[in-house]
Amino acid sequence: MNSVVGDLIANRDSILAAARRAHAAGAQVVLTPELSLAGYPPEDLLLRASFLQRTDEVLSEIAEASTQTPGLAIVVGHPWARDGELFNAASVFRDGALVCQYAKLELPNYAVFDERRYFRPDGAPTVFEVEGIRLGLAICEDVWFPRAGALARAEGAQALLVLNASPFHLGKFDERLAVMRQHVSRQGLPAVFCNLVGGQDELVFDGDSFALNRAGEVVARSPQFVEHDLIVALDASGDALAQPLPEPSSAEAQAYAALVLGTRDYVRKNGFRGGVIGLSGGVDSALTLAIAVDALGADQVTAVMMPSRYTADISLEDAAACAKALGVALTTIPIGPITDALEAGLAPSFQGLAPDLTEENLQSRARGTLLMALSNKTGRLVLTTGNKSELAVGYCTLYGDMAGAYSVIKDLLKGWVYRLSHHRNRVAAAVQGGPVIPERILTRAPSAELRPNQTDQDSLPPYDVLDDILARFVERGERVTDIVATGHDKAVVLRVLRLLRLSEYKRRQAAPGPRITPRAFGRDWRYPLTNRFSEQEYLA
Amino acid sequence: MNSVVGDLIANRDSILAAARRAHAAGAQVVLTPELSLAGYPPEDLLLRASFLQRTDEVLSEIAEASTQTPGLAIVVGHPWARDGELFNAASVFRDGALVCQYAKLELPNYAVFDERRYFRPDGAPTVFEVEGIRLGLAICEDVWFPRAGALARAEGAQALLVLNASPFHLGKFDERLAVMRQHVSRQGLPAVFCNLVGGQDELVFDGDSFALNRAGEVVARSPQFVEHDLIVALDASGDALAQPLPEPSSAEAQAYAALVLGTRDYVRKNGFRGGVIGLSGGVDSALTLAIAVDALGADQVTAVMMPSRYTADISLEDAAACAKALGVALTTIPIGPITDALEAGLAPSFQGLAPDLTEENLQSRARGTLLMALSNKTGRLVLTTGNKSELAVGYCTLYGDMAGAYSVIKDLLKGWVYRLSHHRNRVAAAVQGGPVIPERILTRAPSAELRPNQTDQDSLPPYDVLDDILARFVERGERVTDIVATGHDKAVVLRVLRLLRLSEYKRRQAAPGPRITPRAFGRDWRYPLTNRFSEQEYLA
Repeated sequence: MNSVVGDLIANRDSILAAARRAHAAGAQVVLTPELSLAGYPPEDLLLRASFLQRTDEVLSEIAEASTQTPGLAIVVGHPWARDGELFNAASVFRDGALVCQYAKLELPNYAVFDERRYFRPDGAPTVFEVEGIRLGLAICEDVWFPRAGALARAEGAQALLVLNASPFHLGKFDERLAVMRQHVSRQGLPAVFCNLVGGQDELVFDGDSFALNRAGEVVARSPQFVEHDLIVALDASGDALAQPLPEPSSAEAQAYAALVLGTRDYVRKNGFRGGVIGLSGGVDSALTLAIAVDALGADQVTAVMMPSRYTADISLEDAAACAKALGVALTTIPIGPITDALEAGLAPSFQGLAPDLTEENLQSRARGTLLMALSNKTGRLVLTTGNKSELAVGYCTLYGDMAGAYSVIKDLLKGWVYRLSHHRNRVAAAVQGGPVIPERILTRAPSAELRPNQTDQDSLPPYDVLDDILARFVERGERVTDIVATGHDKAVVLRVLRLLRLSEYKRRQAAPGPRITPRAFGRDWRYPLTNRFSEQEYLA
Repeated sequence: MNSVVGDLIANRDSILAAARRAHAAGAQVVLTPELSLAGYPPEDLLLRASFLQRTDEVLSEIAEASTQTPGLAIVVGHPWARDGELFNAASVFRDGALVCQYAKLELPNYAVFDERRYFRPDGAPTVFEVEGIRLGLAICEDVWFPRAGALARAEGAQALLVLNASPFHLGKFDERLAVMRQHVSRQGLPAVFCNLVGGQDELVFDGDSFALNRAGEVVARSPQFVEHDLIVALDASGDALAQPLPEPSSAEAQAYAALVLGTRDYVRKNGFRGGVIGLSGGVDSALTLAIAVDALGADQVTAVMMPSRYTADISLEDAAACAKALGVALTTIPIGPITDALEAGLAPSFQGLAPDLTEENLQSRARGTLLMALSNKTGRLVLTTGNKSELAVGYCTLYGDMAGAYSVIKDLLKGWVYRLSHHRNRVAAAVQGGPVIPERILTRAPSAELRPNQTDQDSLPPYDVLDDILARFVERGERVTDIVATGHDKAVVLRVLRLLRLSEYKRRQAAPGPRITPRAFGRDWRYPLTNRFSEQEYLA
């Protein structure tokens, strides 16, 4: 189920529609995700009494409506205010009555999670019966620890229903599966794991719900990144029965689908329909355009080429070919007259000073301003095109190429930008009969084209080196000494970490974008801006 | 003490310098703030093994150096990694030896605090003896609850030393005092409360350390917003002895000093010296300029006037008079040619479409781009001039007037902008012999001057109404029904809340700025961008 944060009415209606479908299919229980009524994460909405009050009212409406699906138990996730404290809860309604309520025990407060800001732990076990089978409840983090399951089993549960809002990152399914298998084998309780699907700001929930039988085998599984009714059958002992499983998909296919869903949901859930993208003739903006077209439709995407005197002809050609292959109309606005006017205005102040990064940034900011103007006038959101490697080391211009509402590939290291581009072209070869990202874009040396004959590698280490250092340090949290021990030059590692630290202020003002790695530059990266800790000194 | 986050060497040196001064003054204990060695808050630096390891090494250096101040107990705040878990701790060193260690019990995880992201609670009581007096330790939030003090007393403590990193907001001292008085009266333990001073990103710590005797009276107190050695004498029973207290200062004087300190520390701790400010002839930029001059010195501030065809002559005159009164050179860069070039570039795309906010935003973004260019070229940080009322309702342009490194008055509602301007002029009347913010700036109707004859009140409710609604809803967390009950028009309240919700995306990309109210738009305001909860529906 794809809940929308704060849209209590729409979420109520989705839950009841699922209940009607479940009832029509002969099911006895319909399980929805964690906080399915509120959306996840509601963040500081949970501090508003009016939000909690309205949630309670809408929850009562679900209780009443449960009479329309006789005999069906509806499991709803919702915040629960009780005696002046707030809990992350699940309620079970059947035939107009509240059957039982459970409140989460283990509250994650790390990485992207801040649940102890809002909730108190509980964990008092609850079991309800369906056709003689005793079902226990758990919520997400509960099954990453032994306590809640043990309590449910002690209470007599024969199978566990787990409400989840577990965000996607690459490799997450295997993590979830390993944890759930351990949990099942420890408790001997078959489990049905229902996960949220959809984009919410920087988080993408992949759905991918599944069931494990008592032996810890995956016996049922939903497709990823789409809403889906997974019907799980339990035998008389409460064990889950096997059914055909969907084909697994590649890491590239998963990452691509996550970016498409994150982008679509950010744009649509915020009441917009279309996007504006500045093309450069490079791979980042080409991939962003492909994702935007897949997310929103070609007719909802405006592509703009904003050449300067430093823009190569092949950049113009490649951008045009890419837009054409994706069926997007391309507008061209030369920026020369704008940067000339800016430089003329600044000339008295800059007298006697040599050109430097300032003039490069002017070009980028002229482009950012044009894109924002097109956005303002057309009501389409600017989709930013920067990648994670650039954002990590500050190879990007605040209010320039960083300007925009949603930063589609901000969690893709440069190497992954190429991997997903090749992936999209492989799909295109089958569907469109040829690449959507022209081959030359994938083979040229990357350049910001902000001065003559510039390439990214004038300023940065080679991308394979940079990406490996960043993946180890940022995404996997490895120590500098260990990174150097893998063979990286110590001076290069320290230079990358210095650039990383000094560009924190840019990331703080960056647009949100979908998270697809274990650590993105967002809720799970909370560094002070004012920060003088230098690894240089530590390693001296 | 003004610690710098991550600057372990400088913080070590500050602690040892304080120890030498304390020793020279004949003191037996020197008490430093919470996490004095690391700076507060270190945020995700606490997740880095290298940072923790280096902290341990530097802590050992303090232990060794304590031999140079014989007999003096040095109380240092620091993160403490123990058995794979992390604690917010205090260590006492004397004559080269570790005397005792304490780890915080109560970990705040609300408002601006995220301590449960990093730390585990402990609270095992520790008491050490100085000239026959038994001293207990507590850390900040510990004294907001009864447990830690009761444990210390049970352990035999006669007085409590409290390490704090308690951020300033208006009225905070009275809160702290009330809490500490209750704590003292409950435990019968005199207490010395040592607080951090200085700006750290959006937080400003005001120092304002104090001591309470057993009767709960304030018997010693430091001045606010400056580093200061407060020497507190205890009698043989451990009770704190009285000394002259500093004069209390007005709310306006406190708020102004907080903004000056926050601005100075953000600029300097990040390795810069100067600031660039766009003047408009209005009160927001005039006050920002005054604060910047007081923080950095007039010679370190660049003021820029960027008039358009809509800029009134009196705006030019007033901006010039303000810059002159503050001793700042004023540069003028007309933006007409730049917006003309932008509009010409966009003309083919905008054919047949009426002028709207787009053209107003172009002016603002041309100015933002010019300011950023001046910043890039001169190495001075752009200081943004928007106030909290504007930022709340989105009456500001992303990448335009919002562009910059530090947003000096972002936590001042418009009424407070006037209050602090009058305050600064009162100081100026005594010091400079006349106002630094020209009287006409304080009496004219506010205008963004982005179209002919515009005033803010064309788009917004009167500021006294807007400010009161925002103060109640944002700063004091009042319910909408209660706000309406005070006499505000329900439709106006709902309109303000709608604008507040719809401008969340702007605030997410805003520059940081100093917090001076109980709730600023920063770490203590964590709303989802994608959020469909409408108070309209709740109140229907």
